[in-house]
Amino acid sequence: MEVAILLFDRFTALDAVGPYQVLASVPGVTVAFVATTPGLVQADRAPFALSANRALAELTDPDIVLVPGGPGQVALMTDEIVLSWLRDAHAGSTWTTSVCTGSLVLGAAGVLKDKRATTHWLAMDQLAGLGALPVAERVVFDGKVVTAAGVSAGIDMALALTVELAGPDVAQTIQLGIEYDPAPPFDSGSPAKAPPHIVEYLRSRSRFVLEGDRTRPSS
Amino acid sequence: MEVAILLFDRFTALDAVGPYQVLASVPGVTVAFVATTPGLVQADRAPFALSANRALAELTDPDIVLVPGGPGQVALMTDEIVLSWLRDAHAGSTWTTSVCTGSLVLGAAGVLKDKRATTHWLAMDQLAGLGALPVAERVVFDGKVVTAAGVSAGIDMALALTVELAGPDVAQTIQLGIEYDPAPPFDSGSPAKAPPHIVEYLRSRSRFVLEGDRTRPSS
Repeated sequence: MEVAILLFDRFTALDAVGPYQVLASVPGVTVAFVATTPGLVQADRAPFALSANRALAELTDPDIVLVPGGPGQVALMTDEIVLSWLRDAHAGSTWTTSVCTGSLVLGAAGVLKDKRATTHWLAMDQLAGLGALPVAERVVFDGKVVTAAGVSAGIDMALALTVELAGPDVAQTIQLGIEYDPAPPFDSGSPAKAPPHIVEYLRSRSRFVLEGDRTRPSS
Repeated sequence: MEVAILLFDRFTALDAVGPYQVLASVPGVTVAFVATTPGLVQADRAPFALSANRALAELTDPDIVLVPGGPGQVALMTDEIVLSWLRDAHAGSTWTTSVCTGSLVLGAAGVLKDKRATTHWLAMDQLAGLGALPVAERVVFDGKVVTAAGVSAGIDMALALTVELAGPDVAQTIQLGIEYDPAPPFDSGSPAKAPPHIVEYLRSRSRFVLEGDRTRPSS
């Protein structure tokens, strides 16, 4: 079973690497990092650069598609090469998945039409405009489409997907192997729980948080 | 403030990338990925390869040192170039930190002598042999030395460190920004909580889990 994790200029590192760490541990699963052009792909902050080992054109029928989010998602939503690849890959996939604002890219490709889906909490309003039915949950399954909330939610999504792929024993083995017994120092990881002034601060900077501080790439 | 994340052949991806995602978001912090030789560094499973942008010799006085774990840690524990760099970097650091079996490398460098420290639960026995005082906690502070438990614990460690670096408001802002409101599908992320047959299975394969399935590199 082959997983294709889409990389693109200005992706968010943990969106891709959290699910990678889980899915690459599932017996029988291989993971490819795919990009329009193979080679180093820059994340949303220098100096993070991850190597894409396959070109989109080389891997057109992955079993699982995974689209991370990140500021580069804005440019991706009008990138016909990527959107067309996503449509084709989705047509043949067993699972089509996203993390964070990766779901907006799935939406732009038409994959989320009338699907229950989630995204980063700051981007929730944008989902409905793409034909999806936004759901404020951490991991949302609708048929073969699985979307995760912001950044770190990809780890939970990948573990839930592992249950589907290989059963609960394998998922629990991987969870214990990566010692995923989370203990964040605060209970502030969702807008419903964080102190109001923190939520307001991020809302006031939502464009910066979601789209980054660099000039939007023209290509 | 400069963070040096040490990369080495066969590191575990999430050990490095979890804390990276948090620390790179702290205002005033820059992160460098350092390795003996800059360029692509292979993680413990192909095709994951992350780019190291600085050589150890170029960055000898980071404010924060972070050592991830992974099967390559075994070779690193006798790599005098790395151990000597770690000793020097630790001498001048504000914080010296590790994730997972990265603490065994800190131990091999002599940094953990009589320090309370933690590591991946399967490696806990090895810590005492390196002069440390093993503690089965997720994140352990002892003076300026901060160690985290296995793989995913680096995220919690980095958030706790962010409190020290920049205060609780910044830490909570980052936690909400990465929507770190964890919801694993099982409560099986520690040996105290996982089903006994899962714990036993991983214990029986502990050498494989910690050191990987490839022949130990000779260099």
